[in-house]
Amino acid sequence: MLSIDQLATAVSRLAGGELSARVVGDGQRTIAGVATLEQAGAEHLSFLANPRYRRLAAVTRAGALVLAEADRAALFPGGSEASVLIVCESAYAWFAFAAQALAPQAAPAPGCAPSAVVHPGAQVDPSSSIGPMAVVEEGACIGPAAQVLAGCYVGRQVRIGESTRLNPGVRIYHGCRIGARCILHSGCVIGADGFGFAPFRGQWVKIPQTGAVLIGDDVEIGAGSTIDRGAIGDTVIEDGVKIDNLVQIGHNCRIGAHSAIAGCVGIAGSATIGRRCQLGGASMIQGHITIADDSIIAGATAITRDIRQAGFYTGIFPFMLNRQWERNAALLRHLDELRERLRRLEASVAAHGTDAKRTESDR
Amino acid sequence: MLSIDQLATAVSRLAGGELSARVVGDGQRTIAGVATLEQAGAEHLSFLANPRYRRLAAVTRAGALVLAEADRAALFPGGSEASVLIVCESAYAWFAFAAQALAPQAAPAPGCAPSAVVHPGAQVDPSSSIGPMAVVEEGACIGPAAQVLAGCYVGRQVRIGESTRLNPGVRIYHGCRIGARCILHSGCVIGADGFGFAPFRGQWVKIPQTGAVLIGDDVEIGAGSTIDRGAIGDTVIEDGVKIDNLVQIGHNCRIGAHSAIAGCVGIAGSATIGRRCQLGGASMIQGHITIADDSIIAGATAITRDIRQAGFYTGIFPFMLNRQWERNAALLRHLDELRERLRRLEASVAAHGTDAKRTESDR
Amino acid sequence: MLSIDQLATAVSRLAGGELSARVVGDGQRTIAGVATLEQAGAEHLSFLANPRYRRLAAVTRAGALVLAEADRAALFPGGSEASVLIVCESAYAWFAFAAQALAPQAAPAPGCAPSAVVHPGAQVDPSSSIGPMAVVEEGACIGPAAQVLAGCYVGRQVRIGESTRLNPGVRIYHGCRIGARCILHSGCVIGADGFGFAPFRGQWVKIPQTGAVLIGDDVEIGAGSTIDRGAIGDTVIEDGVKIDNLVQIGHNCRIGAHSAIAGCVGIAGSATIGRRCQLGGASMIQGHITIADDSIIAGATAITRDIRQAGFYTGIFPFMLNRQWERNAALLRHLDELRERLRRLEASVAAHGTDAKRTESDR
Repeated sequence: MLSIDQLATAVSRLAGGELSARVVGDGQRTIAGVATLEQAGAEHLSFLANPRYRRLAAVTRAGALVLAEADRAALFPGGSEASVLIVCESAYAWFAFAAQALAPQAAPAPGCAPSAVVHPGAQVDPSSSIGPMAVVEEGACIGPAAQVLAGCYVGRQVRIGESTRLNPGVRIYHGCRIGARCILHSGCVIGADGFGFAPFRGQWVKIPQTGAVLIGDDVEIGAGSTIDRGAIGDTVIEDGVKIDNLVQIGHNCRIGAHSAIAGCVGIAGSATIGRRCQLGGASMIQGHITIADDSIIAGATAITRDIRQAGFYTGIFPFMLNRQWERNAALLRHLDELRERLRRLEASVAAHGTDAKRTESDR
Repeated sequence: MLSIDQLATAVSRLAGGELSARVVGDGQRTIAGVATLEQAGAEHLSFLANPRYRRLAAVTRAGALVLAEADRAALFPGGSEASVLIVCESAYAWFAFAAQALAPQAAPAPGCAPSAVVHPGAQVDPSSSIGPMAVVEEGACIGPAAQVLAGCYVGRQVRIGESTRLNPGVRIYHGCRIGARCILHSGCVIGADGFGFAPFRGQWVKIPQTGAVLIGDDVEIGAGSTIDRGAIGDTVIEDGVKIDNLVQIGHNCRIGAHSAIAGCVGIAGSATIGRRCQLGGASMIQGHITIADDSIIAGATAITRDIRQAGFYTGIFPFMLNRQWERNAALLRHLDELRERLRRLEASVAAHGTDAKRTESDR
Repeated sequence: MLSIDQLATAVSRLAGGELSARVVGDGQRTIAGVATLEQAGAEHLSFLANPRYRRLAAVTRAGALVLAEADRAALFPGGSEASVLIVCESAYAWFAFAAQALAPQAAPAPGCAPSAVVHPGAQVDPSSSIGPMAVVEEGACIGPAAQVLAGCYVGRQVRIGESTRLNPGVRIYHGCRIGARCILHSGCVIGADGFGFAPFRGQWVKIPQTGAVLIGDDVEIGAGSTIDRGAIGDTVIEDGVKIDNLVQIGHNCRIGAHSAIAGCVGIAGSATIGRRCQLGGASMIQGHITIADDSIIAGATAITRDIRQAGFYTGIFPFMLNRQWERNAALLRHLDELRERLRRLEASVAAHGTDAKRTESDR
């Protein structure tokens, strides 16, 4: 429970003083949590970030509502009776910080669960928590206030930064480094061997994967995602990268700072993704290519060569009724023939047209 | 080992009395298990569900064979010497229930393994089993005859329904609810944070994910699949939904009852899938869209907008030899130009035709 | 640390005596590890396998450099001052074996961690290692020098072959068999139930999955990958198959020896992949189809019917700027109409041509 004024102070602090807002109404009203426009009551904070939902905002019963000045002016020129208005140009970000301030803090008590197995040669900060069934190997280093929850595995020489949280069942192979304030979700695997084999007489010879995975600060990695260690040299995830569930990142990739990667994306080895890129769900990035900073890739799109210029790129086969698809898809195998027929026809018509003209002028 | 008559009784019970069959031959013959048409012997039950396999059914040595009346009439008008025939219009369903009746029951003994860590504030039904290395947190509730197998993690306030089975290494975050008779396979993760961030000055601000995951009864979830908790409000999987391996379901999705989702599917946040839908393997559903009840989506198809009417939808780029693809694929970037050239040509020919006509009438 | 001569001996032994090389320079120079051409110093071995990188090889400071005769002749006709040259036609394979010889051996000590739970009815070879929190069930058999690392689960009657390594958190359901010298990475799940259900009155009836998974020798399986047990009969992965991360293989598939499957691939049930096939990342193989030996499938390609002849197959929608895609993609739904318009136009022009001719001859 925080008053709106307390919330505003908390948001400002979380945003590094860079996010100001104007409160219209009673700043002493208390807020217990967040809710959608439809479901919010007097104890809730809600938000309007997209003018499309103005209709819902007009009738919300939320105790407090964050919105931009233009939305306020359109909806509540004289203020709102139901809601205290928090007017902020980055309404969604303000809401996000406020939701953080309101979220219950569920950090486990510091210390090591009796069932955990921590190698005596590991360095575990006394302010960190090691959960039941967790295993921490020799030479690992667990930073202040870090959480290594139930059943996690932290390999030899792994470093876990301050306040980083490994949710239950995260596994980190030897030698990898995770920065500060990261969140890794259950089932993700950091530092498994990259997929590297040399062909030899019809078989595959394993190339030992001698690099590691280096993960910056403020990175989030979703459930079940896998990031492979480098073959020679490291796989690098820069600061602030956000990775959703079931994402695969191959050996020796580099993901630029503050990029966001949605679920089911696959990035093959040695790809370099720029900063602030956004990769849509189930997109696929071929190996050894480079994607420019600030590129946006649509979901389900395969990127098969370098992107040198930021832009919004798409490559999705449109869906249709199956019988319509049956009629159309097979033609894709013969587009070149269609074009060739068109060319011949153009030539023929052009020739004929010339003839026709000549005929006319002849007459 | 069950006699065919005993099997028929068991199937009828499992099917709620709604699945009758006619036995042609000796109902006292005993059956030990199921097998394919080719591999079955006298102790096996096999089935013919697709007329395409009649040829194999005609020569099977199965002790018992489930099939539809039309197949029986075609293959064994006078009965079969080798096989007792079980004639049923839903032959495949009859077979499925019979296989259930014949399958060995491997439920572990009730009780809690010594190595498990169960919080004293959890409610664990005495008829349930908690396997080695499992962790059950405060406030969790494990229902009658439920199985929480080796290395599972059950978070705070999670509810596990009657007779539900969590295979080794399932992880369920706090506050999620799983219904009765569900089966969750190893490595699946229920209730990890949804992928929700607000952009702010080139970085991403985390939006706390305050909802949960609610899973109905009789749901099966495959190995390694991930279902995220809601941002605000819950992610909902209705009764009878079947989900294959490595499926990702984003925050605030709702999957309608009795839908089936094949492997490698990704469903982005806030999508609503209707009832009895079938999503083919590796299909992808964009966020915030709605798919009508009874829709069928082909594998590898991306659904990028609402489907308002049930149907069979496909969007697959057909595969071809790479050199053929090289010739054709690039033309896709210029289909609009091809169409434009075609239009101009049509106009030109039409004009010429008119000229020609006029010329004729002039003459 | 090995001298180049020692390395050559080790490579020859690892390659079964089938890989010879010629050393140009001082065979007594010692090598500590491998590095890229750019980063290598005097203590490193590097390699040139692709003539594209000759420029880098020309200036590398690597202590030893493996390369083919043609590259040597082009770059170092008189030998190299910086590097000892190892001339070998299979330079990449030679490098791979050498990297194996140089890689530190990190096998854990034999024996069973105190926290592991091994059923008294399991057979565990005394030379194998069972890590902390691992669970080995009744009737399981762990072969000589096998490693079952932290938190792994080995079900009833599972067999793990000699020198096979299960990295932390691998889970193997009852009855599956893993051959010798395999490497399974964290989070992979072997033998979960296949996705088999019979439709019955709008619901799904589970078909018990009574088969197992049989995995040959020298197989590698990536992090988070899932291989389902057979419905009736087994799922089979033949010798030498290499599987990357987050790959899903459905029930009753057979993957031919020495095939390589990149990340995020989905293979639906009962598919048969030939020997020495290569499946690109995020490709998708439909169920019940057969792919010929030595086939190569591009990444992100959906294979929807049998491939009877080896070849390189592709089916990728090319990516483009989104606005270009908007113009072009919708036309795919009407390719058949475009073709029909083209046909009519061809007919019209042909007819007109005839008319024209007739007109001319009339004159």
